[in-house]
Amino acid sequence: MTEPLRPGATIGILGGGQLGRMLAMAAARLGFHVHVYDPDPSAPAAEVARAATHAGYDDQAALTAFAASVDVVTYEFENIPPAALDAIEVQAPIRPNRRALTTSRDRLEEKTFLHEIGLRTAPYAAVDGADELMSALALIGTPSILKTRTLGYDGKGQARIMTPEDAETALGVMGGRPAVLEGLVSFEREVSVIAARGLDGSVAAYDPGENVHEGGILRTTTVPARLMHAMRSDAVLAAARILNALDYVGVMGVELFVTRQGLLVNEIAPRVHNSGHWTEAGCLVDQFEQHIRAVAGLPLGDGSRFADVTMENLIGHDMDRLPDLLREGARVHLYGKAEVRDGRKMGHLNRLLKR
Amino acid sequence: MTEPLRPGATIGILGGGQLGRMLAMAAARLGFHVHVYDPDPSAPAAEVARAATHAGYDDQAALTAFAASVDVVTYEFENIPPAALDAIEVQAPIRPNRRALTTSRDRLEEKTFLHEIGLRTAPYAAVDGADELMSALALIGTPSILKTRTLGYDGKGQARIMTPEDAETALGVMGGRPAVLEGLVSFEREVSVIAARGLDGSVAAYDPGENVHEGGILRTTTVPARLMHAMRSDAVLAAARILNALDYVGVMGVELFVTRQGLLVNEIAPRVHNSGHWTEAGCLVDQFEQHIRAVAGLPLGDGSRFADVTMENLIGHDMDRLPDLLREGARVHLYGKAEVRDGRKMGHLNRLLKR
Repeated sequence: MTEPLRPGATIGILGGGQLGRMLAMAAARLGFHVHVYDPDPSAPAAEVARAATHAGYDDQAALTAFAASVDVVTYEFENIPPAALDAIEVQAPIRPNRRALTTSRDRLEEKTFLHEIGLRTAPYAAVDGADELMSALALIGTPSILKTRTLGYDGKGQARIMTPEDAETALGVMGGRPAVLEGLVSFEREVSVIAARGLDGSVAAYDPGENVHEGGILRTTTVPARLMHAMRSDAVLAAARILNALDYVGVMGVELFVTRQGLLVNEIAPRVHNSGHWTEAGCLVDQFEQHIRAVAGLPLGDGSRFADVTMENLIGHDMDRLPDLLREGARVHLYGKAEVRDGRKMGHLNRLLKR
Repeated sequence: MTEPLRPGATIGILGGGQLGRMLAMAAARLGFHVHVYDPDPSAPAAEVARAATHAGYDDQAALTAFAASVDVVTYEFENIPPAALDAIEVQAPIRPNRRALTTSRDRLEEKTFLHEIGLRTAPYAAVDGADELMSALALIGTPSILKTRTLGYDGKGQARIMTPEDAETALGVMGGRPAVLEGLVSFEREVSVIAARGLDGSVAAYDPGENVHEGGILRTTTVPARLMHAMRSDAVLAAARILNALDYVGVMGVELFVTRQGLLVNEIAPRVHNSGHWTEAGCLVDQFEQHIRAVAGLPLGDGSRFADVTMENLIGHDMDRLPDLLREGARVHLYGKAEVRDGRKMGHLNRLLKR
């Protein structure tokens, strides 16, 4: 399918969390129907979608029926089992493509890819056991950080190694899984570029945002990021290089470290990204609509920024502040999650800094 | 119930057209569940709501079950049968209140109310038959316009009387229904104020928009409206007077004629309004979220305008232009209606005029 989808077509979304939910509403605004696939019967995206399948990612029959009911499949998370994708792709195109998924779900493959296309990252080395960790530490030194190659997010599956004595504990956190040792980069700030590539190969990028994390979880994103003009261009060009190299279709989040030696790519996420939630308040077409436009084969929309915005995540008991937040001038966006849990993303808010 | 609703509460919406659909998505963004009531199984709002009841407005059992399942009931249209409201209000509060509905659904009651609170309208007189039409014409003169007292919208149930000879034909259009004769006002332009009143009595108004109609249907709304400063204040104050007099809770659309003699109120709609769709692209909190905030008892949000916007309705075969519209810089919003019909509102688009 290379023709644009028409209103009334159905977009399948793998994953029904908050990203899937915001994608579902963006798809509805463009006249598409949505079918959400998520094992969790209380997945937040399901209630704003026309259809929902609650089944496991190993349920071949459910996956096949899901794929047969939609015109294109997209996703809100990168750790989709390959067998699930196999079942889907015989029925419906998957966008972004599988290469983007396999590249980004494995930290080692991701870094190798980035180097192949001429981008810079923190120093890294593969670690599959104690001996390799020792030689990697000899190469990279401390402080460094050991991360599982796959399935890590929001700071999970990571352990810092401040001195060589931390090595054993860090290896324990990996639990025998293949890992990557990364040099801990001394960076001035982290920025991210939310970029999109259409089915026609056109690329558009939102203005880079500046991210602040707490405890491994994104706390705020502010646009514009404090970046010199040349670095702003470099960041956007790096994102475009990644999208083009992957023949990517959709929105991608590219996290970059700003260092004295220039930009290093931290990681890429083949999906809409938490650090792009500000686009909802600062652009005519937000990242969710941009992603839907791309995967539906429509022209990319106008993502130019018309305001300075700070996005703040509402995490766990931040929800206690809700009455106050509703009273101030912010735009509050909640995800409809029934249960407040520590570290759980419950919503976000956007504040305009300048008009 | 005078306490604010908490996330996880359910808002019932009577009517599942595009206004109900946009209200449903705004409610979801604030963490509420939505239950839509609409006789039509293909009502566009149903697919973005958690629950939908498809039953008639005379189905007491369905109405009772609907009302019992929600925390508050609001609506997207004013012509709700009173017996349906009777069945609902024993179970759940109705916001905006019934007085707003009875006042606005009957052109005669509406105009009487507006005069009572000191606002000006076109000259008018009740018409229940041929004799009354003759005396009304003697009083008001031509050109004038005969309108059914109830159930008119988008130019339906109306007939112009350019000369007294048109009287009989016009009366025929009424089909024996009670009517109102209104003097045809020579106005420079029509503007509308989208205003909101919270459960705490606070009032907020969006900047007035300037409306252009074609064939009785709204074509475009542009903000800012071309209005002298004093008239802009008058328009907003008139809306506030209406909201306060009705002890209103929610968003209201107030249409006004700009004449050489000042502002005349054309009509009021106790709901979100087509001429407020521009708020989606020009404000941090749009009219849909503002309405949900009000009926949920939350503080009103920040509706200040940060851009100049033109909203254009996509009516019937305007949809043929969709590929081009997606290519230009507009924000396209479609309503998910399966069938394109002449005069049917299929979507709208917002263009930013200035940043």
